[in-house]
Amino acid sequence: VADPRFFDRAGPLSLAQVAEIAGGQVTASAADGVVVDVADLSSATPSDLVYVGDVSYAPALATTKAGVCLTTPALATAVPNTCKAISCANPRAAFAKVAALLYPRTDAQWPTGASIAADAQIDATAMVSAGVVIGAKAKIGARVRLGANAAIGPGVSIEADSVVAANVTITHAIIGSRVIIHPGVQIGQDGFGFAAGPRGPQKVPQLGRVIIHDEVEIGANCTIDRGALADTIIGRATKLDNLVQIAHNVVIGQACIIVSQAGIAGSAVIGDGVTIGPQVGVIDHINVGSGARIAGQSGVSRNVAAKETVMGYPAKPIRQFWREIAALARLTKRG
Amino acid sequence: VADPRFFDRAGPLSLAQVAEIAGGQVTASAADGVVVDVADLSSATPSDLVYVGDVSYAPALATTKAGVCLTTPALATAVPNTCKAISCANPRAAFAKVAALLYPRTDAQWPTGASIAADAQIDATAMVSAGVVIGAKAKIGARVRLGANAAIGPGVSIEADSVVAANVTITHAIIGSRVIIHPGVQIGQDGFGFAAGPRGPQKVPQLGRVIIHDEVEIGANCTIDRGALADTIIGRATKLDNLVQIAHNVVIGQACIIVSQAGIAGSAVIGDGVTIGPQVGVIDHINVGSGARIAGQSGVSRNVAAKETVMGYPAKPIRQFWREIAALARLTKRG
Amino acid sequence: VADPRFFDRAGPLSLAQVAEIAGGQVTASAADGVVVDVADLSSATPSDLVYVGDVSYAPALATTKAGVCLTTPALATAVPNTCKAISCANPRAAFAKVAALLYPRTDAQWPTGASIAADAQIDATAMVSAGVVIGAKAKIGARVRLGANAAIGPGVSIEADSVVAANVTITHAIIGSRVIIHPGVQIGQDGFGFAAGPRGPQKVPQLGRVIIHDEVEIGANCTIDRGALADTIIGRATKLDNLVQIAHNVVIGQACIIVSQAGIAGSAVIGDGVTIGPQVGVIDHINVGSGARIAGQSGVSRNVAAKETVMGYPAKPIRQFWREIAALARLTKRG
Repeated sequence: VADPRFFDRAGPLSLAQVAEIAGGQVTASAADGVVVDVADLSSATPSDLVYVGDVSYAPALATTKAGVCLTTPALATAVPNTCKAISCANPRAAFAKVAALLYPRTDAQWPTGASIAADAQIDATAMVSAGVVIGAKAKIGARVRLGANAAIGPGVSIEADSVVAANVTITHAIIGSRVIIHPGVQIGQDGFGFAAGPRGPQKVPQLGRVIIHDEVEIGANCTIDRGALADTIIGRATKLDNLVQIAHNVVIGQACIIVSQAGIAGSAVIGDGVTIGPQVGVIDHINVGSGARIAGQSGVSRNVAAKETVMGYPAKPIRQFWREIAALARLTKRG
Repeated sequence: VADPRFFDRAGPLSLAQVAEIAGGQVTASAADGVVVDVADLSSATPSDLVYVGDVSYAPALATTKAGVCLTTPALATAVPNTCKAISCANPRAAFAKVAALLYPRTDAQWPTGASIAADAQIDATAMVSAGVVIGAKAKIGARVRLGANAAIGPGVSIEADSVVAANVTITHAIIGSRVIIHPGVQIGQDGFGFAAGPRGPQKVPQLGRVIIHDEVEIGANCTIDRGALADTIIGRATKLDNLVQIAHNVVIGQACIIVSQAGIAGSAVIGDGVTIGPQVGVIDHINVGSGARIAGQSGVSRNVAAKETVMGYPAKPIRQFWREIAALARLTKRG
Repeated sequence: VADPRFFDRAGPLSLAQVAEIAGGQVTASAADGVVVDVADLSSATPSDLVYVGDVSYAPALATTKAGVCLTTPALATAVPNTCKAISCANPRAAFAKVAALLYPRTDAQWPTGASIAADAQIDATAMVSAGVVIGAKAKIGARVRLGANAAIGPGVSIEADSVVAANVTITHAIIGSRVIIHPGVQIGQDGFGFAAGPRGPQKVPQLGRVIIHDEVEIGANCTIDRGALADTIIGRATKLDNLVQIAHNVVIGQACIIVSQAGIAGSAVIGDGVTIGPQVGVIDHINVGSGARIAGQSGVSRNVAAKETVMGYPAKPIRQFWREIAALARLTKRG
């Protein structure tokens, strides 16, 4: 599943190796076979390993095409017949260890001699400023402008007429046309994914990408992490102000406005035409419907319906927010 | 109005062209003439185009010296006799299109061969570290220190004894003496300005500058956008902590303290000696009087008087904030 | 006290000079002698100058080994016999002036010719990408990977197997093994320390370091300031998400999780295994006990006990937070 432009896969691993890593029990049906790759439940194929640590994933598990699943003893019976189960105490931590063996290096490999890799494809009309570093097999489209000291990682592609300002880093990403990326933006680094381990948080390799569609604008010093297994996606003509944080696996629709210092946590899904005010926080796995509006500094901890306007900490319908503010003020006048 | 050190102007455009771009009606008095530049109402001259989309600008419109004004049919009658009116459905979007034609490129033009432009003026006592990129006609003053891999855009000037740390980007800006700019700061990029358009937000060219006065200190990874038409200004001896966001057209007075992760939205005006706590948000067009104090995480959504101390979301007088917190705590004890 | 790898000390200063700088009175016992260095009360030696501006430091003052103390007339009697007292109106401002004389330059001195200082020690197995700048006497360990255009300041050491991504700046810091530092991170710049002065805030030289222990991970565009006199410390296996702010003198324990856009103010002490949610603010000098959990967007303005879970603005026990939210909702239904 991991894009070979960004990740070199080792392996495969035998099921016996995987079971040993997991400290797990292999069911009778899983005595042999190999794991070629890791994947999420929905995109996995029979050569892939998945994991399920939580009963909320049972529906996705029932229909997965994965060949092998790391899971808990309690959930092992929910693994479909087409998939071999390995039950263990901490499926996510075991999955992380397997992923780290299959992908021993996931950080960008920069050129160490000349600044621009010999096999990078740079359109003759592109402008490459002083100090720019471009990694192997990156593709820079027509009339793209790369600002001073920008770093474009291996395999990254940037389509025509996009502008990348100075001191930007882009790795593990596919960038559309007419995109504007302001200075200091960091795109494509690891998402913040850890499994509980005996000596502290244990890193879960981040094997997805960042996809930026056409006409997106990204403000200075924003951070956009790549996906864990799937991709982080920003839709056409969405505009991000400065210092916005987009976590791994977030999917944002078209023509949204996200004002400065807002943060969208992992796997949140934002519709089209959404307005997110400054310093808003949206927690992970939340769904914000198209046309919704979120007032500044709100803390969005539940789904927001299409066209709904919310405000507050925690966020609630904006009228209720202001009613409560008024009620609180009256309370102290009475007191 | 746009500073020629930072922006190359095309044009002029005939009024007929402007009207066609706007999809607008030209009043009888506006049948001919040209637009040389775009401006805001207060600084415009007879060769400039302005726009008014909102009745709140009627007082400024009454006294403008602009030659041509894009406006709505309803507001067209408020345009003074000295100014030709073009009425259209969306004056701001039309203005943005005209501005984009007059200023086809507004991002910094970096050197592409040597790292330092041949016509940059660098004082003999300045220290230029490895990897620094300096654009055309930039001026670097006596004893200025530029840190590793800093990028100083074309036309930027930095006066004596200022320090710019590593990985900083400065474009479209005038920097005073004894200023300290910490690593990763981004100064002078586009403000976050968009007009509603049929296919999503439409970019409004940002044609102002950033002016940083003497003895200012700017913390790591701060972002300071340049003005839309006027300038973004930070007054003498004001100190910004890390990760502070200053939006376009903000004007900050002298000797203020702005603590980390605070954000000041567009066109807010902050007086002298103001203290703004960490993670505070100040919304756009707000006025904060001299000597005011804003407690951490407050959301300032109305003007703050001189020497007032506010706290809360939304911000209110700090005593009232704490009274309400106490009242709320009592409420649950009763319940 | 200041680490000679990062700071060059001038001086010494005579006590008469110090008294003149302070505009202060020297007690009879302090008529002669010199000040070699500045320090904090707990680590000072007889050749060091300290200051006490506030009665809360009286216990530490009683046991200090410092040779000279700048203090107020009111506190001068609390200075122990082993220490000479200089009383003045603003001890902190006077201390800042002395420190600035003893350490006239505290920003990183970057190479100005070749990108890598001749006396930097770089392990043969380290990967130094294009555009990297490395200062004098820096030490880069085995298999360390330095990303494109990273800037590693003079005297910095990075131990084996750590990864530094592109466009990172590290100065005044000691970095352990297997540390991961994502792009755009800024480590080791000045903390945000100022004394009140007649013309605005007066800079207090920042003479400490940043210490990052093994297996720490630091998200994109984080900022970690060095200590004022002591060090800023991040313990083993602690993980920081993107855009986190760590102020000077903060001490963080092992295996903590600090989610994006959180900010920890100066001298706060965080225990082991603490979870700090997104956009949380922790004010200065706060103590957060091991195993505590702080929900997103909370404003922590008092100590948090070990294993306590808090939420809110200001932060309170999480059950109380939700009870108050419910009570407020009921209030408006009644109203």
